[in-house]
Amino acid sequence: MNAVLENIYTRRSVRSYKPDPVPEELLEEIVKAGLYAPSAMNGQSWHLTVLTGDAVERFHKFSAEKAGRNAYYGAPAIILVFADKKAAWGSRDGSLALGNMMLAAHSLGLGTCWINIINHIFDGEDADALAAEWGIPAGYAPIGSIEVGYAAEPPRDAAPRREGTVNWIRA
Amino acid sequence: MNAVLENIYTRRSVRSYKPDPVPEELLEEIVKAGLYAPSAMNGQSWHLTVLTGDAVERFHKFSAEKAGRNAYYGAPAIILVFADKKAAWGSRDGSLALGNMMLAAHSLGLGTCWINIINHIFDGEDADALAAEWGIPAGYAPIGSIEVGYAAEPPRDAAPRREGTVNWIRA
Repeated sequence: MNAVLENIYTRRSVRSYKPDPVPEELLEEIVKAGLYAPSAMNGQSWHLTVLTGDAVERFHKFSAEKAGRNAYYGAPAIILVFADKKAAWGSRDGSLALGNMMLAAHSLGLGTCWINIINHIFDGEDADALAAEWGIPAGYAPIGSIEVGYAAEPPRDAAPRREGTVNWIRA
Repeated sequence: MNAVLENIYTRRSVRSYKPDPVPEELLEEIVKAGLYAPSAMNGQSWHLTVLTGDAVERFHKFSAEKAGRNAYYGAPAIILVFADKKAAWGSRDGSLALGNMMLAAHSLGLGTCWINIINHIFDGEDADALAAEWGIPAGYAPIGSIEVGYAAEPPRDAAPRREGTVNWIRA
């Protein structure tokens, strides 16, 4: 099995992190991998916001206030992905960028977990203000976010794959 | 640079294919990679339909009749991805499966291209009938499709990445 397939099969969502920060050069590599995702008509409709340091703590608080709980697991970095609302396929573009980043991180020894809460909390004047302060362009909608950090525990086995999700048609 | 990153950076959309069929064991590996994508709450809301042989030709005709043109480039295999309409994040799940498959294919020496036309043509009684014949579950919506085959030409360089799509927030 080649390294790409092995990386795909061994990636797991990580929900417990060491406090160690993610070296900036690794975050840059992960972000670059996200930007090299394919996108509809090469529109690259995404916008990425990389949170580290105090910005992570601040976002935890914001998330907890808006959602009633903090959905994040305490990783030292968070990457928020938004997409241009005018891009008809922005959720596809953004998801592909997030997918690339999860795989790139795993290949670099880092864990990630898609945290979907940003689809619920970026709503209202306080959210608009935070988005503007962080340079997220107006008219962009949340797609998803990932936490990035070193896993605190060894990964569990993958959950079983659901039956009956593939059909082969030859004629 | 590790093999996973190199695979991400060198993947390109392929729009010209050799007629050579894709060995079935490679298609199976690509499909498996798709099924190992993460999904919201591990819902695995996707359904994959793998077309080879005459089924590809038939789908070209169907696509051409519905859309006024055949959007496919003639690769010997097509994988259609649908997702359960009841899954709120089905477009994310399906996109991650498609992303994994594009990367897995590239690692195996195969080219792919996301063809979005299925989002337009699976509409109407004729589409419902074809979906039912091919075992696509009722209540599933198209997400995207990929062609899979051997590239007929060497890849071009990646288009430039758009400026201003990443912000770093540290406090």
